[in-house]
Amino acid sequence: MTAGIIGATGYAGAELARLLSGHPEIEKLVFSSVSFHGGRIEDIYPNFLGRVSGPLQKADEVIASSDVVFAALPHGVGEQFAASCMERKIHYIDLSADFRFDDDEPVYSAWYGKPYHLPELHKNSVYGLPELNRRRIKELAAQGAVIIGNPGCYPTGGSLGAFPALAKGLACADRPLIVDAITGASGGGREPSRSFHYSECADSTSAYKVASHRHSPEIARNLAAMAALAGNPAPPLIFTPHLAPVNRGILSTIYIPLAGSWRVTGGTAMPPSKEIEAKTAELRDLYADFYRDEPFIRVLPAGVTAATNRVRQSNYCDISIHLDMNGSTLIAVSAIDNMVKGAAGQAVQNMNVLFGFDESAGLDAIAALF
Amino acid sequence: MTAGIIGATGYAGAELARLLSGHPEIEKLVFSSVSFHGGRIEDIYPNFLGRVSGPLQKADEVIASSDVVFAALPHGVGEQFAASCMERKIHYIDLSADFRFDDDEPVYSAWYGKPYHLPELHKNSVYGLPELNRRRIKELAAQGAVIIGNPGCYPTGGSLGAFPALAKGLACADRPLIVDAITGASGGGREPSRSFHYSECADSTSAYKVASHRHSPEIARNLAAMAALAGNPAPPLIFTPHLAPVNRGILSTIYIPLAGSWRVTGGTAMPPSKEIEAKTAELRDLYADFYRDEPFIRVLPAGVTAATNRVRQSNYCDISIHLDMNGSTLIAVSAIDNMVKGAAGQAVQNMNVLFGFDESAGLDAIAALF
Amino acid sequence: MTAGIIGATGYAGAELARLLSGHPEIEKLVFSSVSFHGGRIEDIYPNFLGRVSGPLQKADEVIASSDVVFAALPHGVGEQFAASCMERKIHYIDLSADFRFDDDEPVYSAWYGKPYHLPELHKNSVYGLPELNRRRIKELAAQGAVIIGNPGCYPTGGSLGAFPALAKGLACADRPLIVDAITGASGGGREPSRSFHYSECADSTSAYKVASHRHSPEIARNLAAMAALAGNPAPPLIFTPHLAPVNRGILSTIYIPLAGSWRVTGGTAMPPSKEIEAKTAELRDLYADFYRDEPFIRVLPAGVTAATNRVRQSNYCDISIHLDMNGSTLIAVSAIDNMVKGAAGQAVQNMNVLFGFDESAGLDAIAALF
Amino acid sequence: MTAGIIGATGYAGAELARLLSGHPEIEKLVFSSVSFHGGRIEDIYPNFLGRVSGPLQKADEVIASSDVVFAALPHGVGEQFAASCMERKIHYIDLSADFRFDDDEPVYSAWYGKPYHLPELHKNSVYGLPELNRRRIKELAAQGAVIIGNPGCYPTGGSLGAFPALAKGLACADRPLIVDAITGASGGGREPSRSFHYSECADSTSAYKVASHRHSPEIARNLAAMAALAGNPAPPLIFTPHLAPVNRGILSTIYIPLAGSWRVTGGTAMPPSKEIEAKTAELRDLYADFYRDEPFIRVLPAGVTAATNRVRQSNYCDISIHLDMNGSTLIAVSAIDNMVKGAAGQAVQNMNVLFGFDESAGLDAIAALF
Repeated sequence: MTAGIIGATGYAGAELARLLSGHPEIEKLVFSSVSFHGGRIEDIYPNFLGRVSGPLQKADEVIASSDVVFAALPHGVGEQFAASCMERKIHYIDLSADFRFDDDEPVYSAWYGKPYHLPELHKNSVYGLPELNRRRIKELAAQGAVIIGNPGCYPTGGSLGAFPALAKGLACADRPLIVDAITGASGGGREPSRSFHYSECADSTSAYKVASHRHSPEIARNLAAMAALAGNPAPPLIFTPHLAPVNRGILSTIYIPLAGSWRVTGGTAMPPSKEIEAKTAELRDLYADFYRDEPFIRVLPAGVTAATNRVRQSNYCDISIHLDMNGSTLIAVSAIDNMVKGAAGQAVQNMNVLFGFDESAGLDAIAALF
Repeated sequence: MTAGIIGATGYAGAELARLLSGHPEIEKLVFSSVSFHGGRIEDIYPNFLGRVSGPLQKADEVIASSDVVFAALPHGVGEQFAASCMERKIHYIDLSADFRFDDDEPVYSAWYGKPYHLPELHKNSVYGLPELNRRRIKELAAQGAVIIGNPGCYPTGGSLGAFPALAKGLACADRPLIVDAITGASGGGREPSRSFHYSECADSTSAYKVASHRHSPEIARNLAAMAALAGNPAPPLIFTPHLAPVNRGILSTIYIPLAGSWRVTGGTAMPPSKEIEAKTAELRDLYADFYRDEPFIRVLPAGVTAATNRVRQSNYCDISIHLDMNGSTLIAVSAIDNMVKGAAGQAVQNMNVLFGFDESAGLDAIAALF
Repeated sequence: MTAGIIGATGYAGAELARLLSGHPEIEKLVFSSVSFHGGRIEDIYPNFLGRVSGPLQKADEVIASSDVVFAALPHGVGEQFAASCMERKIHYIDLSADFRFDDDEPVYSAWYGKPYHLPELHKNSVYGLPELNRRRIKELAAQGAVIIGNPGCYPTGGSLGAFPALAKGLACADRPLIVDAITGASGGGREPSRSFHYSECADSTSAYKVASHRHSPEIARNLAAMAALAGNPAPPLIFTPHLAPVNRGILSTIYIPLAGSWRVTGGTAMPPSKEIEAKTAELRDLYADFYRDEPFIRVLPAGVTAATNRVRQSNYCDISIHLDMNGSTLIAVSAIDNMVKGAAGQAVQNMNVLFGFDESAGLDAIAALF
Repeated sequence: MTAGIIGATGYAGAELARLLSGHPEIEKLVFSSVSFHGGRIEDIYPNFLGRVSGPLQKADEVIASSDVVFAALPHGVGEQFAASCMERKIHYIDLSADFRFDDDEPVYSAWYGKPYHLPELHKNSVYGLPELNRRRIKELAAQGAVIIGNPGCYPTGGSLGAFPALAKGLACADRPLIVDAITGASGGGREPSRSFHYSECADSTSAYKVASHRHSPEIARNLAAMAALAGNPAPPLIFTPHLAPVNRGILSTIYIPLAGSWRVTGGTAMPPSKEIEAKTAELRDLYADFYRDEPFIRVLPAGVTAATNRVRQSNYCDISIHLDMNGSTLIAVSAIDNMVKGAAGQAVQNMNVLFGFDESAGLDAIAALF
């Protein structure tokens, strides 16, 4: 089976190349790049020398010779390639935001600045968060070629950390649910810019796009879908992204307001009570039970708090469960590798679901602490 | 004037030595260290060679030859030195938690594991956050020798970011106020440990002591004092510390639930409205006005978000003001250098207030971006 | 086949666990640890949760149930385990310095502070740098159980970068050969210490143990063995280690004085001449030819200089070839991952050679740039 | 006195602004920028808010209102501004390479790609390494307006580490003198580029421009001038720059081949002998004596090796002295802050020399370890 990667020289594209090179069902990779057309991928990424190799062709050539196509392109340019894949009846997995929203949602054009050119394409598309939509992905794949809207990095970490609480009806809808997240610099992509210039971001932490990041509507939409499983509306979302000087990883600290029946009495003046500790264990068990069959979610045992170095270069999403000492708010901390579970790894997982492969195929990397 | 530093070889002690060496009113520094008694400070810190120099004496010797004493010791061991200073009628500025709580507060023993041995000492003590207690510090100094309980690093950044909102009655007390903060590794002190071992914390972000950090009661107490200025109770506090691989700096993202009259209509599905933007400007102006006479608080202009590299090695607390897109929550982001405004710089500022010096004396470092 | 790891909780041991978990010929791993005996490896390394798991047993238990044993122990304690393995007639791969020198060499005791207790063991041992000793390793394995003295990290990077020049007689023995190397912090191991405390080593570069590091005699011995292939003595060695704030990687800049016939005319006042460039290409071709059959050596093409991020988490040693502008000195820059080719990966490679497996088995990770 | 800074928004210009703001003889600063003309410096550098402030004017306006002018511009564009300053009879301190070479040297055009347009200007210029040329700078200043060619960062660290050995006749000219240096990322300037993009250079070490960096001829020229003081030719130079993920600092490891009379017998197989240690102490004393009156050179005591975090944000050059264990090569390790002693601080030092101020004025920052 041949996999094509459009936009192969960006960071997500290169990560796809790296992961797919080790995938047992992929025999051949073909690459496309606008920026470096005519070159070779191993010239752009000498770390690939001797292992990942090939010319950078035109997108059409890649599509024509592939059995499945991944696109790691800027937002707004991928619909034409999706259409070509649908014509060729091959699955198309899009890592941009272009297929993350349904065609009847106005949020895409509001946040990404342009409407869909080919809205009818969206009938074949599904938002590719397997933990939420695995069944739907399989149903669509049974009918023909599918377009996967691969989730954003922040929405993956934020949504997975809140999912059980919302689906099980733990959250109250009166108070905001806050996703406070810290990303690494690879999330900014390969193109040099002031924000990711070493001297400007090393040895510093900062917030950015506070309350105005375009991953907000994607997270809010996911939360609503998850709360709907319990017949509830979702709490309003507040999302604040931060930047820390790390290469990979998103750590999301998610404050989930508990519905009255889940609250316990507490206080901020005194250390956590036994009641708080017992309720925390109960909530942790609920999360662990909810995710017990998921291959890539690890609900961490008591005493272990999520950290991005424990998921480095793996497809895991680690979640640790805490209860605020005043007893009103569940605090879930999730950690993902933004390039793997937050981008390329999740895309490979989606391919595995689409084709009925073992969902972990090609995603067996064990996290290295450093 | 001679200043003594007890605990001079820890990071806060060394930072005091560095700052006081440039203070125009300090002629001489004397140093004490238990760990390195008999050595010299420039042997422990060769970066001081030729500039900061002196033997590491016993604490009593240092107190006997000083006009003001700073203590940068572990919690629980400083009361005896405070008592000696009171006997000698000289000011004592304590950077530990030992004098951050009043003698009638049970929270100190609950969180720090031991009661006060000399509770009567606390009549002469004041919590040294100048923006909150400047008047009280001066009143006490007019009466005699004073013990300053120098604030913790997290409480400084968290409290200053929330102060105007609470003091002006903007916050509602029904929803939690969340301080979500990221510290640098110097906050862990000089003693090697697993958590701050380079290979364990570099290139990683993590949360720790979620909802159980002992700075929680200090922040909560400050918030209550601030809200009381408007005749209000404070909202319950949730405090979550994080660690990022930076040397210095604390970035605090503070979610302040707005009282009904301050809220505006918004939503998470659509980008921030003009109404949101206008209200944000109003809130920013309110903060700027509140802090207009403070020498070390900078309320940042629109378009600039707080970042720790803009306060590096300075005594500034930068604050940027944001309003969540659903209009219900003020988001203040504050940045301090944890070793300066969060520890040694604030201690020098307190000395300046105590002695009636220019409050900026010795604290004129301009932040270097890197 | 079952592999045992003694000293499994140190960084090299954990890296062995990670690599061997993906090895196609290893069915089971068993672990030993003195420090954490009675615990489980996934408690020490939560990044292993769900993937690498098992109790931390006694060394003897591990040896008794293994078909091959790896030891990642401090220097000076492994001979007894080697003896046990020889008795059981199973291969023993030692990552310490204990078997890097032959029994008749006095350098081991001079540098490591104690003599061999069981010198007769060394008859079964071989220095496990496959590029130098592959044939000898196979010969010994054909005769019975073998002890591998797995090379040090610095000696691996330094020796491989100089090997072709020495083996082909390019170097003159009159001037020193200099290995100037920069290591990452993981080389310091898992035990917290001042040198690797985040605040002391982050955002800083330093030299250490200048001209007195105990990897010096190991490198010098290797250079002598390589030069002997050309019938030459080796140049005297100068080795200077440096520390930079990176997790993994050793970059070695190796200054090899060229024998007269290999020199070209040049100068330092003017940019490199065409003659210099032509000679550089010739030297690069010579290196590439020398290593053409080696699975893990990449001689980089013109225009690409070795960098540690291009070998991250892979078993590659990248080498770039340069000629000083005065034409007298070949400058080879080599990059390895100190935990992989510099420790655990090379140990796995040695196992592959010993058992006749594909030499790349279990070592197929493609370097990720970050 | 008013100081003007042309090119104020680059990193060196901003560092000048920061340092000069604290200079006791400078009352006012005026700024010029081509890139941000019309803006204000505190908008480009919000870390300056409230402390360093002013409009970004045209260069001519700045020159017209200044008593001394600093230029932190790209190479090749400053001669016109130097000429204007000479006309106005005010000192001009140029941080580019434009005045580092004399007018009769062809190396400038060979390495920087263009000839001098106004070669006659160079009669008024002097290379501003005070430790080498202090007397000459003063002589020229006594005659009128002076142009200072402020040294490059690498040449400063490399030359100062070799100076005593060359000036005292310790070096032999038959073997190369090697400067192997590691820089931080701020040396790459403020303009975003692939090489300094966070994800490409963080957590990695690399060499670059091996044997072809244009600081080579500047270092070689300095070495020649230093050796000439002992009546000797200088050894040929090999210069290899490296990049490590630190913000500031250059660490130079300098291998100086000793003349026969200075060598001692040694070896690489055995740990350093007492003879080696005694000779090392002798060499260290010689360095310390040579630099005893220099305000910014610290020859480190035995047991302390140079590290860039000990000179952070200070104007110091730290030098540690070592002798290779084979006794043939002095190894001097020097550390500077590339932005201070390697650029802006040295420029201020040159101003102090020119005007007869205390040479340390405005340069009294004590290095912070982090």
